[in-house]
Amino acid sequence: MDDLIKEIISFRDERDWEQFHNPKDLAISLVLEASELLENFQWKSSEQAIDINFKHIQDELADVLIYSLMLANDLKIDVKEAILSKLEKNKQKYPVEKFKGTSKKYTEIE
Amino acid sequence: MDDLIKEIISFRDERDWEQFHNPKDLAISLVLEASELLENFQWKSSEQAIDINFKHIQDELADVLIYSLMLANDLKIDVKEAILSKLEKNKQKYPVEKFKGTSKKYTEIE
Amino acid sequence: MDDLIKEIISFRDERDWEQFHNPKDLAISLVLEASELLENFQWKSSEQAIDINFKHIQDELADVLIYSLMLANDLKIDVKEAILSKLEKNKQKYPVEKFKGTSKKYTEIE
Amino acid sequence: MDDLIKEIISFRDERDWEQFHNPKDLAISLVLEASELLENFQWKSSEQAIDINFKHIQDELADVLIYSLMLANDLKIDVKEAILSKLEKNKQKYPVEKFKGTSKKYTEIE
Repeated sequence: MDDLIKEIISFRDERDWEQFHNPKDLAISLVLEASELLENFQWKSSEQAIDINFKHIQDELADVLIYSLMLANDLKIDVKEAILSKLEKNKQKYPVEKFKGTSKKYTEIE
Repeated sequence: MDDLIKEIISFRDERDWEQFHNPKDLAISLVLEASELLENFQWKSSEQAIDINFKHIQDELADVLIYSLMLANDLKIDVKEAILSKLEKNKQKYPVEKFKGTSKKYTEIE
Repeated sequence: MDDLIKEIISFRDERDWEQFHNPKDLAISLVLEASELLENFQWKSSEQAIDINFKHIQDELADVLIYSLMLANDLKIDVKEAILSKLEKNKQKYPVEKFKGTSKKYTEIE
Repeated sequence: MDDLIKEIISFRDERDWEQFHNPKDLAISLVLEASELLENFQWKSSEQAIDINFKHIQDELADVLIYSLMLANDLKIDVKEAILSKLEKNKQKYPVEKFKGTSKKYTEIE
């Protein structure tokens, strides 16, 4: 992961783009890339989308990850730690006994 | 990274949620989480947002990463490979000579 | 408004597109168009964006409205009524005495 | 439509919120509301979503429209004109002969 982040930041530094990359615009960019990923599924079933657009899906997912890792880097967030700590919270929020086999949100279950 | 993906998938398997997690709904979820991340910056400068909402930003970024890794896993996309291959394409699309120090898009530059 | 909706639906009917326009994909499309609108502001201040991209902003905003009115039509939602009823709820949620001159969310104010 | 816009702007003026409502943050808000609308369809078919979440869908769609009309007002965009002019462009982009009965994008058709 650290090597990947280094590659991403060096790509940015070569272009001198850090000056534009404030966290608010990075968060905007993350939404834009996630939308471009979703666009591959518009008017389609999952199967059709993967059939027709697999290469695009892979590229857009990579863009989402690139911006995520950039933002983490700039905010000095440790990616691994952040994920494990959020999974821990999700475990509290969605205990197995209550949420096994249901897609309900925690707000929809008493 | 592989260990993180294992943790995420085991969280899902314990809840028997794979049945709901078709790629189209995962792509939707990715947009929703990216939007929740962005919500922390609404009506605020980057500095104000980080000051007030740092913990939330970290958690939402983790959610974006969790869904990204889940989707990569389900589509059998190698995350590292996908990122490096996309960076390579971006290098072609944004050659240093033309794009150093400018935030223009490749469509805005002749 | 009714005339506008008629124009929009007749555009769709001429192309026989209603078959693809289930509400879930229309909601997806709405997010995609809102993101394309936002893209015009990426890496820019409001002023720069309007200066450079005004025509695009107008077109993307129109697309957001077109999909919104289409979805309202398909779900038999009366647009005027829906807006006025939501404004009423917002007035309850954000009483003038508490929220005048502050950009805080209702969750951030006791 | 003009009356609706007046209601919306008067709601804002009573709260003195115009100071926060720069176009960039309004465009962000539009994405956030469109995402909240879409959230009602997450993990569900259109039918299930409408069955369970109709009231929420109506309210979120109203929020999308409220922000759209606010942004149009602030940028002095005539909503009706913008929609009709965009429909005209879409008619050029998607001529009936080529696009009748297909959900392909114009980039997918030669």
